[in-house]
Amino acid sequence: MSKGDETRLAVLDQAVEVARMVGLSGLTIGSLADQAQLSKSGLFAHFRSKEALQIAVLEHARASFEASVMRPTLRTPRGEARVRRLFELWLEWDSLPGGCPFIAAATEFDDRPGVVRDQVVRGERDLFDAIVTIFRTGVAEGQFRSDADAEQFAQDLYGVVLSFHHTRRVLGDARAETRAHRAFERMLDDARI
Amino acid sequence: MSKGDETRLAVLDQAVEVARMVGLSGLTIGSLADQAQLSKSGLFAHFRSKEALQIAVLEHARASFEASVMRPTLRTPRGEARVRRLFELWLEWDSLPGGCPFIAAATEFDDRPGVVRDQVVRGERDLFDAIVTIFRTGVAEGQFRSDADAEQFAQDLYGVVLSFHHTRRVLGDARAETRAHRAFERMLDDARI
Repeated sequence: MSKGDETRLAVLDQAVEVARMVGLSGLTIGSLADQAQLSKSGLFAHFRSKEALQIAVLEHARASFEASVMRPTLRTPRGEARVRRLFELWLEWDSLPGGCPFIAAATEFDDRPGVVRDQVVRGERDLFDAIVTIFRTGVAEGQFRSDADAEQFAQDLYGVVLSFHHTRRVLGDARAETRAHRAFERMLDDARI
Repeated sequence: MSKGDETRLAVLDQAVEVARMVGLSGLTIGSLADQAQLSKSGLFAHFRSKEALQIAVLEHARASFEASVMRPTLRTPRGEARVRRLFELWLEWDSLPGGCPFIAAATEFDDRPGVVRDQVVRGERDLFDAIVTIFRTGVAEGQFRSDADAEQFAQDLYGVVLSFHHTRRVLGDARAETRAHRAFERMLDDARI
């Protein structure tokens, strides 16, 4: 890896942390330059525009989500164990300081057409599809009912994670995690044969 | 009502619509002056600072939520009918152009301490408490199990609304509403005696 690539990755690590806190819109080349102790012109050389920076941050966060959540999930045995692993790692991901950067980005850009929104939507669709596919391994393995609705499961699982995020981070309610686990167990109970 | 009060209310109506689209952070006295066809100095006379504008917008949106969602809910007979009414009106509220302004504000301000965040948190806590109280009318009326967990219901109901919001607005999935209703019916099935 060249020195330039290394700098770029180090800056993106910091940028994802900042985006978790202030959202993608709050992330400017100026504020990031301060944080990363780089010159604004140096950062412009890497990213050229605020939009290019936002896209790069989304891609970097998605790669980190793949490494922390999706790959370990797919290494777990198919079926309920894999669904369970996905849920646990997703909650851990959301529990990092600042919370999930995709939840913030999705809310910020849902009404702002453009390349950043397109990137957010692609990432969220991929995640929705991944949940559906992972859930279906439980049907294929004969653990979940064959008439269980995988898209319903995916939307409901999103709900458990989003309300965990909201109840813990906005309401500051320490019981949010226990309730999220309880809701998840009820979903599994409904799905099981 | 004085002419000044009328102008203030008309401006706040517009400001809430803008906040639904771009969030509270995206709402500036400058951009609002353009939309409302008022001078910036005229708006400053009403709100004095961006923060005061954000607080006023939150209060105005909350009053509108009270009028559109909470008051009709509380006029509905206690118990399951009232819980059902709350859910239906809440989904309608979220389905207005731009979606729910509180969801946007909660995500924007969860990591930004200050008076705006405090206001967001107060509003969300009040809503959580209201759901708990409304659910408990179903227990008191003998329709829901006496050991049903009202806080669990509140967090789960938030999840159904938040994942509806996400699946419909970000993923653009037309079946989001059907799934939200199905998830809600399952919650009621679990609660009923």
